[in-house]
Amino acid sequence: MNITEDIKAYNEVINEHLNELLSGNDDDLKLITDAMSYSVQNGGKRIRPYLVLKFSELGGLSKFDRGALSFACALEMVHTYSLIHDDLPCMDNDDLRRGKPTNHKVFGEATATLAGDGLLTLAFEVISDAEAPDTAKVKAVKALSELAGWRGMVGGQIMDLQGEKRKLDSREFNKMNALKTGALLRCTARLGLAAAGCDDEDTYEDADEYCACVGRAFQIRDDILDVIADQAEFGKPVGSDEKNGKTTVLSYMSLDEAQSLAAELTDIAVTSIKDYGEVGAELAEFAGYLLTRRK
Amino acid sequence: MNITEDIKAYNEVINEHLNELLSGNDDDLKLITDAMSYSVQNGGKRIRPYLVLKFSELGGLSKFDRGALSFACALEMVHTYSLIHDDLPCMDNDDLRRGKPTNHKVFGEATATLAGDGLLTLAFEVISDAEAPDTAKVKAVKALSELAGWRGMVGGQIMDLQGEKRKLDSREFNKMNALKTGALLRCTARLGLAAAGCDDEDTYEDADEYCACVGRAFQIRDDILDVIADQAEFGKPVGSDEKNGKTTVLSYMSLDEAQSLAAELTDIAVTSIKDYGEVGAELAEFAGYLLTRRK
Repeated sequence: MNITEDIKAYNEVINEHLNELLSGNDDDLKLITDAMSYSVQNGGKRIRPYLVLKFSELGGLSKFDRGALSFACALEMVHTYSLIHDDLPCMDNDDLRRGKPTNHKVFGEATATLAGDGLLTLAFEVISDAEAPDTAKVKAVKALSELAGWRGMVGGQIMDLQGEKRKLDSREFNKMNALKTGALLRCTARLGLAAAGCDDEDTYEDADEYCACVGRAFQIRDDILDVIADQAEFGKPVGSDEKNGKTTVLSYMSLDEAQSLAAELTDIAVTSIKDYGEVGAELAEFAGYLLTRRK
Repeated sequence: MNITEDIKAYNEVINEHLNELLSGNDDDLKLITDAMSYSVQNGGKRIRPYLVLKFSELGGLSKFDRGALSFACALEMVHTYSLIHDDLPCMDNDDLRRGKPTNHKVFGEATATLAGDGLLTLAFEVISDAEAPDTAKVKAVKALSELAGWRGMVGGQIMDLQGEKRKLDSREFNKMNALKTGALLRCTARLGLAAAGCDDEDTYEDADEYCACVGRAFQIRDDILDVIADQAEFGKPVGSDEKNGKTTVLSYMSLDEAQSLAAELTDIAVTSIKDYGEVGAELAEFAGYLLTRRK
């Protein structure tokens, strides 16, 4: 298996399903439909929905199960809403995202705020409409709301805001990242396994360890890329963290040390899913791909 | 039964449950907890959760059923988030809400945006955690996400924004109100009946007609109060709609005509639930109370 080919094949299916879920034909609501679609279709890496689908296979579902696909797209919508709100002038005030103007640059702040709200709300509608048993849907709503909410991603964003006012100590910094980036990555396992009707605690724990480690390694690689990446390839301004006085992992260690730490975390991730056959091997390869990604 | 006493008794139980759901003891997340609680505890009329509880009784549940109470609080959280985002400088730019400084005036725009996001997300977590069967929870998630989302409340807000740029015609104006205000009021019936495990289509239809009419009458009364209310009692600046050049029902008819229309709608609402015994009578009295409210 070629990992980039595999990702590409999954992304095609994910993008098609996202488009279906975002299609609307009400002229009065064209503006909000356009604003939501603009950011969702803005060429993300689709890491989170890819992982949801892989975990649904790890839990025993066949490839591209419709229920798992809906859960995967719901998570991508939540990720996208968080980027739209994060880019707003009152937050990070970013003009570019994935190489294109941010949502509020195109649609204005009010519409961008509502587009974010609309995507977050739609994520839960998509779960409630999914081709899956009620038990799976309730588990999915629980996982997504818990990990995206005030004790999860939103909590991480609040800590990140506080970090603009005073330097976070390393405990706070790690917690901020675990919530802001880690929470949604950990959500991938819970959504995929929920879709598969998995009840085995050990599987949830192994998958959670994989996600937690991959999440940390992903954030570290992001901080490294902000320094070493090629801007055109990376899709956002390089060196912006330093310019903005932002605390990153590189505030605590050198580039080499950071990459070694990311590699160590990837090793732990790979070990945690080594007993899960072919899907485990694919997840291992995916973790390696994230470790060396250039965008 | 005295309707104001009844509302007061329900509000006490609702407020207590809201406080429970919003309690947090993580010092790192104190800011977001405080910001979310500030707006939720800012003395709203609790019309929506009151109606959710009444409809749960109409569907056969006993008073203050725990599952229905959670659904009711979830809806109030969604209503509160919408007010926080609506008050933001990029939206209505309001300094006062219910007589107190708006969320962003106290906590800043970034935190207010996140507090809204946190409340919207928490609403779905509260439903997933409710003491109710999975079928009821999935129905509740579906109703709330559909009616609060891009084809519901958020869609109404987008139309409202467009109304600031050009005058909406009466079809657009009615649709805007039906979505912006009406959708969450219609949600009360669906949440209450879902909590009660109601499967009877006719009951859903009767309850929906009540809610749709009460929702329209409520909005008309709001537009009237903006002109005739006493500011201290009303809790927000009087005359702000005219000052802001906002289209209201009074753009299309006189004060007297508007109050007559609200009364007619209230009559239809009352007729639609007249066969539902004691709870029907209470709902009828509540509709009358809303029609003559002074704040």
